[in-house]
Amino acid sequence: MVALLQYLHNIYPLSEGLKEHLLRIVKSKKIKKRDFLLKAGRKCEHIYFIEEGLLRCFYITNKNEVSSWFMKEGDLAISIKSFFEQQPSYESIQALEDCYLYFISYKELQWIYHHFPEFNFVGRVLTERYYNLCDQRLYAIRMHSAPERYEYLVQNFPDLIKRIPGTHIASYLGITFETLSRIKAKRKG
Amino acid sequence: MVALLQYLHNIYPLSEGLKEHLLRIVKSKKIKKRDFLLKAGRKCEHIYFIEEGLLRCFYITNKNEVSSWFMKEGDLAISIKSFFEQQPSYESIQALEDCYLYFISYKELQWIYHHFPEFNFVGRVLTERYYNLCDQRLYAIRMHSAPERYEYLVQNFPDLIKRIPGTHIASYLGITFETLSRIKAKRKG
Repeated sequence: MVALLQYLHNIYPLSEGLKEHLLRIVKSKKIKKRDFLLKAGRKCEHIYFIEEGLLRCFYITNKNEVSSWFMKEGDLAISIKSFFEQQPSYESIQALEDCYLYFISYKELQWIYHHFPEFNFVGRVLTERYYNLCDQRLYAIRMHSAPERYEYLVQNFPDLIKRIPGTHIASYLGITFETLSRIKAKRKG
Repeated sequence: MVALLQYLHNIYPLSEGLKEHLLRIVKSKKIKKRDFLLKAGRKCEHIYFIEEGLLRCFYITNKNEVSSWFMKEGDLAISIKSFFEQQPSYESIQALEDCYLYFISYKELQWIYHHFPEFNFVGRVLTERYYNLCDQRLYAIRMHSAPERYEYLVQNFPDLIKRIPGTHIASYLGITFETLSRIKAKRKG
């Protein structure tokens, strides 16, 4: 919890009142590899901070799983549309490793935004960061071939890529596992 | 300017001090159809509020223009990565109609966030909205065929779609103008 508070405080100084409030309401939980944090069709009611572990978001299309993104320690995890609109989610969130998570509910977060206005500075900066990343993923998918996008992952997320099973990287890139293996072989050769 | 202040005030009440500050610093300009608000390679130094008109963002790939999104009156316009990171932009922003715009600089916006903390509430809510839209575009491009994505535009942005030339809608959908014409004909038939 100290690491989480420090992470938030580094974006904008938290008042003592807010720190005490967060210490009182933030909950934690452990989930095992392969456990679901959220299943498609359910509402994403919480926002999670990943203290330890790795998760993926995915959709189902034509009975295939398509990974949409991966989140590791230090990241926030939500299903975006479901959380912001408090509607059922079209995607699932599943643990790829055992995880230790902190979380608060949507309602608790809105309460904080109204009662501790300084937290909006933190929320705005974090939302800008994730918005920027989302826009870059959209740009990559429009502008680059699968090998180029794999190269981008290797260059920009080297630690992440080592921890994600190839099947999920392939589904993220929109290619088969075999094509991913050929791309990897070509890079090495 | 009254409409813009009301738009912001509806998200979170602005103090009198902030209103006066905005009235003092917000600039306005008119640009003509086909004029550029931003050219790729330049830094996006301003955030624009569209009072009147229509703009598009686009990238160049293999000498072709790919429209990435369209923004009309009531929308904010920036090149996301370029604005948030204050780096050269990989996309251009061009007017599809004559536009009347309000704008402030990145530096002025940061000053406001630090000196009028309540404006972070407004900034956070707007960033959440655009982040959510970005995520939905990413979902659509991964999950849906071009005809399905065209249908989504027709259902969700009927006014917008009527004002955008077919070439730009086609490039947004990643298809040729001829394919778009066939999709439209099939819908009508």
